[in-house]
Amino acid sequence: MTTAPWRDPALPADSRVDDLLSRMTLEEKTAQLYGVWVGADTDGEGVAPLQREMSSDYEWDELITHGLGQLTRPFGTAPVDPALGAQALARAQRRIAAAGRFGIPALAHEECLAGFTTWRATAYPVPLAWGASFDPGLVEEMARAIGRDLRSVGVHQGLAPVLDVVRDPRWGRVEETIGEDPYLVGTVATAYVRGLESAGIVSTLKHFAGYASSAGARNLAPVRAGVREFADITLPPFEMALREAGARSVMAAYNDTDGIPASADPGLLTELLRERWGFTGTVVADYFGVGFLQTQHRVAGTEAEAAHAALAAGLDVELPTLKCYGTPLVEAVRAGEIPESLIDRAARRVLLQKCELGLLDEDWTPEPTAPIDLDSASNRAIARRLAEESVVLLDNPDGLLPLAPDTRIAVVGPRAADALAMLGCYSFPSHVLTHHPEIPMGIEIPTVIEALRAELPDAKVTFAEGCGVDDPDRAGFEEAVARAAEADVCVAVLGDRAGLFGRGTSGEGCDVTDLHLPGVQGDLLDALVATGVPVVLVLLTGRPYALGRWHGQLAAVVQAFFPGEEGGTAVAGVLSGRVNPSGRLPVSVPRVPGGQPWTYLQPPLGLAGEVSNLDPTPLYPFGHGRSYTTFTWESDATGAEIGTDGSYDVSVTVRNTGARTGAEVVQLYLHDPVASVTRPDVRLIGYQRVELAPGEAARVTFAFHADLSAFTDRSGARVVEPGALELRLAKSSTDARHTARLNLVGPTRALGTDRRLLCGTEVSEVG
Amino acid sequence: MTTAPWRDPALPADSRVDDLLSRMTLEEKTAQLYGVWVGADTDGEGVAPLQREMSSDYEWDELITHGLGQLTRPFGTAPVDPALGAQALARAQRRIAAAGRFGIPALAHEECLAGFTTWRATAYPVPLAWGASFDPGLVEEMARAIGRDLRSVGVHQGLAPVLDVVRDPRWGRVEETIGEDPYLVGTVATAYVRGLESAGIVSTLKHFAGYASSAGARNLAPVRAGVREFADITLPPFEMALREAGARSVMAAYNDTDGIPASADPGLLTELLRERWGFTGTVVADYFGVGFLQTQHRVAGTEAEAAHAALAAGLDVELPTLKCYGTPLVEAVRAGEIPESLIDRAARRVLLQKCELGLLDEDWTPEPTAPIDLDSASNRAIARRLAEESVVLLDNPDGLLPLAPDTRIAVVGPRAADALAMLGCYSFPSHVLTHHPEIPMGIEIPTVIEALRAELPDAKVTFAEGCGVDDPDRAGFEEAVARAAEADVCVAVLGDRAGLFGRGTSGEGCDVTDLHLPGVQGDLLDALVATGVPVVLVLLTGRPYALGRWHGQLAAVVQAFFPGEEGGTAVAGVLSGRVNPSGRLPVSVPRVPGGQPWTYLQPPLGLAGEVSNLDPTPLYPFGHGRSYTTFTWESDATGAEIGTDGSYDVSVTVRNTGARTGAEVVQLYLHDPVASVTRPDVRLIGYQRVELAPGEAARVTFAFHADLSAFTDRSGARVVEPGALELRLAKSSTDARHTARLNLVGPTRALGTDRRLLCGTEVSEVG
Repeated sequence: MTTAPWRDPALPADSRVDDLLSRMTLEEKTAQLYGVWVGADTDGEGVAPLQREMSSDYEWDELITHGLGQLTRPFGTAPVDPALGAQALARAQRRIAAAGRFGIPALAHEECLAGFTTWRATAYPVPLAWGASFDPGLVEEMARAIGRDLRSVGVHQGLAPVLDVVRDPRWGRVEETIGEDPYLVGTVATAYVRGLESAGIVSTLKHFAGYASSAGARNLAPVRAGVREFADITLPPFEMALREAGARSVMAAYNDTDGIPASADPGLLTELLRERWGFTGTVVADYFGVGFLQTQHRVAGTEAEAAHAALAAGLDVELPTLKCYGTPLVEAVRAGEIPESLIDRAARRVLLQKCELGLLDEDWTPEPTAPIDLDSASNRAIARRLAEESVVLLDNPDGLLPLAPDTRIAVVGPRAADALAMLGCYSFPSHVLTHHPEIPMGIEIPTVIEALRAELPDAKVTFAEGCGVDDPDRAGFEEAVARAAEADVCVAVLGDRAGLFGRGTSGEGCDVTDLHLPGVQGDLLDALVATGVPVVLVLLTGRPYALGRWHGQLAAVVQAFFPGEEGGTAVAGVLSGRVNPSGRLPVSVPRVPGGQPWTYLQPPLGLAGEVSNLDPTPLYPFGHGRSYTTFTWESDATGAEIGTDGSYDVSVTVRNTGARTGAEVVQLYLHDPVASVTRPDVRLIGYQRVELAPGEAARVTFAFHADLSAFTDRSGARVVEPGALELRLAKSSTDARHTARLNLVGPTRALGTDRRLLCGTEVSEVG
Repeated sequence: MTTAPWRDPALPADSRVDDLLSRMTLEEKTAQLYGVWVGADTDGEGVAPLQREMSSDYEWDELITHGLGQLTRPFGTAPVDPALGAQALARAQRRIAAAGRFGIPALAHEECLAGFTTWRATAYPVPLAWGASFDPGLVEEMARAIGRDLRSVGVHQGLAPVLDVVRDPRWGRVEETIGEDPYLVGTVATAYVRGLESAGIVSTLKHFAGYASSAGARNLAPVRAGVREFADITLPPFEMALREAGARSVMAAYNDTDGIPASADPGLLTELLRERWGFTGTVVADYFGVGFLQTQHRVAGTEAEAAHAALAAGLDVELPTLKCYGTPLVEAVRAGEIPESLIDRAARRVLLQKCELGLLDEDWTPEPTAPIDLDSASNRAIARRLAEESVVLLDNPDGLLPLAPDTRIAVVGPRAADALAMLGCYSFPSHVLTHHPEIPMGIEIPTVIEALRAELPDAKVTFAEGCGVDDPDRAGFEEAVARAAEADVCVAVLGDRAGLFGRGTSGEGCDVTDLHLPGVQGDLLDALVATGVPVVLVLLTGRPYALGRWHGQLAAVVQAFFPGEEGGTAVAGVLSGRVNPSGRLPVSVPRVPGGQPWTYLQPPLGLAGEVSNLDPTPLYPFGHGRSYTTFTWESDATGAEIGTDGSYDVSVTVRNTGARTGAEVVQLYLHDPVASVTRPDVRLIGYQRVELAPGEAARVTFAFHADLSAFTDRSGARVVEPGALELRLAKSSTDARHTARLNLVGPTRALGTDRRLLCGTEVSEVG
């Protein structure tokens, strides 16, 4: 018997898939276009579909005779020992392969945003903390480790990273984003993608696109946005991660923008993504997103119409489980209502990816090969470094921090003694273990108070919770105030509890109407401040909160964004001084709780002025963060005249003039004084973290190219316009240390998809 | 000497203006394109330019030798006796006419939103109250009276009405709008325009367009909005007022939308407004808006570039005073940087309007002819009726209202005894008199407590202010609580103080970060409720405030939106029962202070659901309002199949089944179950106020046409799509009493500018 061409690894993938498609029935092709949500048995026996998530009664054994596109969350649905889970998945894959005519396994996908979302896997800091680190290299390392772990148990695709740019910090999913600047989001997400893909895992860019802009920050609410905001704020991170890191999958977003649901938008999913950007991977649905076209967006009257709209737009795979892409789709194709060519187009993309992944090869085997350890020492070391780099010292006016070793410390607050305070909503403990209270955490997570006691063994550390995260009970205030009054310093550890759909104060479906600290924590802080004992505020949150109420009254403010399993140690390290803080704000910290939406990317009329009584100026601006050491900035950059296709190198020498090693984050902002459309007063176009020993200096050079000044003009073209520009070398978005003035000459240039997206950066040692 | 052709009233205006333009120098033509802000002397001697408002030192006598386009606010700048002001204006006009070569006077414009903004003129209810009345006929009557008064003193143009559709109730200028629904705004504003124009006054549609959508509700902040929101929400009121009422001027808005400032947008001011809609009048700047292109939007580098951008877009007249359209413009034209044809185009429009107004005629005379009385008895009668129709009874669960004649009433609150509580920020007292504390109000404005004492002479009425509108002092709570405790009922009169740029809690430049009642008024209300005495909340506000905190704890809630000089009487009439309340909410009243933006025009995902923990459902929905009588609604409408170009009459018979005369507002909402883009769950497409004696009934018939179901599709076309529709006859946006189900058949129809905008309505008596 000769091998069929589709089985022949010597042939090009295209030919193999064409051959395979020509042999498949409509049902078999369609079966490649959906996932089934499975729960791995804890005994390793297999996986079973979660019937409750399916729209109809499909029989598993019957279903898989046609093959199966994806297996949904075999590890992230219920707590399962990783090795047993890997066995169960392998058995399920063998069963799927055996049931169909072609022996093709499913592609298994999992959540892995801040670590593989499964039991006993490393919980890394959340993306907002990655943003705060301004360290894409370390994020890439983390993602590579996540990818290796996913691969070790048989997962092929990870549903990360999130490239949504924060447009309203009230949104519950802000913790899953990298921040409010598209350049920061794009560069850090690109690093993540590079790391994940380097481990052989298909990364999934989400949510494409506009999801973060929902009106009122209510999850999935309609997006009010125009084409320029979309092109210049929302899309660039996706373009960057596709072009610079080769992500192989994209997830269509839930939301509509200006009336058009992303999941049914051919302009977005086909014309822009594939025809203009050249993407050849798969577009997958956000969970239940295809069905939402009928039930929520109401742009489809039936499940078949929803399937049609999504497929025609370019959405290839329905997730998490079959609803519209199953029987309704097959029947509509048979009835001539949907062209079979749409099935073929999507199935071809899915099968090409499976081919690339080796899933069409005869020697494919599902058994895991490596020993499985999802929370290795090297993982923890990465988690620790990233946590430490991400803690932001917002204020320390009198240098109270670091704390003296023998201080009497009253640790107060609902986040001080809870390991879950470190984790975001997509961590396994917050996402899944809340439904399994009998199951242990599976990973070691020192709390802030445990870590602080370890860091400062000579300190006298007392504790009072004071209040809960979000319950109204003030009964604990009294004891908290008493503990504070007895101490030299009070460390108030406040913040969020991550959860899903209303079970948390941050996380998916946990949106807020304003940026008050949750519950009565603000009142607790008032009470602590009133004692007169110096109060160090430590925030463990998933979003920024308004801190203007306490401005000038706190001894220090430390902001951490859910810093992961090593976060307690990182925070305690900053308090003790073992760690010199170097995080920078990826989101603005506002003065007052209301007034959203606002981010720092504002044209002049979006800033404070005389035309409104409201002053949206943040208390701590984007890019802000303090250190225990001091730096000088020197630059002789003055500027130049360059062409609208020209470039200009701008350098700054940063020297650590203090007594201890520390890292500075050199930020480059563009100010465009006059343009044909309104432009943000400043926006980030480059950055570089440099770590320096006392007395050490480094020269950071940014290779600015005129392309980086491009924006979307009135006609929708991306252009570089002639005229003046300022390149601001800055410690934060409002703290420029040196400015180079450019004059761009020549014609307005319209850029294509080959435009430069990144600002080249070099660091050289200085004698 | 023969009369020049341009002076010949027998020739068509076009020919006259062409002739005139051919005779004019560049300076003379340019002089027609700006206003000068003048202050009328209080002695009637003349008007003098306000130098402080001008960018350079122009000499008045020198300036007017070239002529002058407009005189800015001769009556609204400082308190002046109307008759003396009219004399002063006439003398200034004679001087302007005498100074130039052609003897052409200026066009005098004034603010007149809720009445002529001058001393001793009637202060009518603000537009939000017009919206609450759902009575365009009465608004037309009011506008006609305003127009007659403007005309009586020599004013030609009124800078009203405001057609902005509320998109975020935190905006300070919400009081100046008609509400959050484009159909309500459009129909009521159209009535206003019809009234004003019928008196010979040029009405000015403002602000064109998008201004109400500023992000975060901060005045002038950049607008996040897409083309479909713009087309379906923002623009329809303008289209309606132009087509149905023939407004002759349009004011370009301050804001940018998605990066493009309205004042520099040829797509808006020329392609849409003139080429598509056929508008032939003038486009004027919002005050300082041309200069803002340079200083705020930064789309122009110089004053001349700002002038160029505005002129090229189609903005004809710079207001309030010359800055960019003066010397900078003339010099740039001379330097060949700006084509003179742009000057000609704008000057032609200005002169055509002056020609129409008779200002080019030799027999033109500036002297006022009628006796001047700007607050006549007939004005006051209109103000009274409109105020009475606009008061909304939000709740009266136990029928405590109307109050018994001999009740002991504790009137409490900072709005009870202040006449200014009735007035919006564009009223003369709030706008100007605050700068002249020595000048009396000029019109009689009974306060709520004065009016209540008059209405209920047998009641024992006590008073305590309790607190100020927005100061934090709680010292008055004690007395207020004491007064309440002694009474049978406490009437808490709370609300806003209108003012400009931070001097008020509502008004231009008085935006808020959330919808808490201003200052400590909410805490005062808590204290009053805690007494156990029934509390009737009376709100005199410029926007809706969150009332969820007191839901179920108040005996009644009465909402008035700055109801004008007769507002105190109207509110007292509702409390006493003399007036049966019939106002309906033109804006939703929310439960919680945060969570904006939100209006009722939401697709399903903008409503409450499982995907966010937040529930934006308002406490009192758009269209809600109670009465002291009861109505039954009967309809046999079931629906039909009609073409996509078809129509369908839907009727309802409303009967007053209570014991007293009252008015019901029959509202017609459209629900479109499936469309090619997301659609609001319901939207208003018709309404009719009907007043009925006890036992009386009326049949209201709406002539629905398929055009009314049109929306902007993905391509930007306005289409009627086939499919199911529901016509809901309703008491409010959430209280449908009867539904007619239509099935539209036939092809999708693309509509042109002749599409039907209005739902025909007939009221017939029923035996």
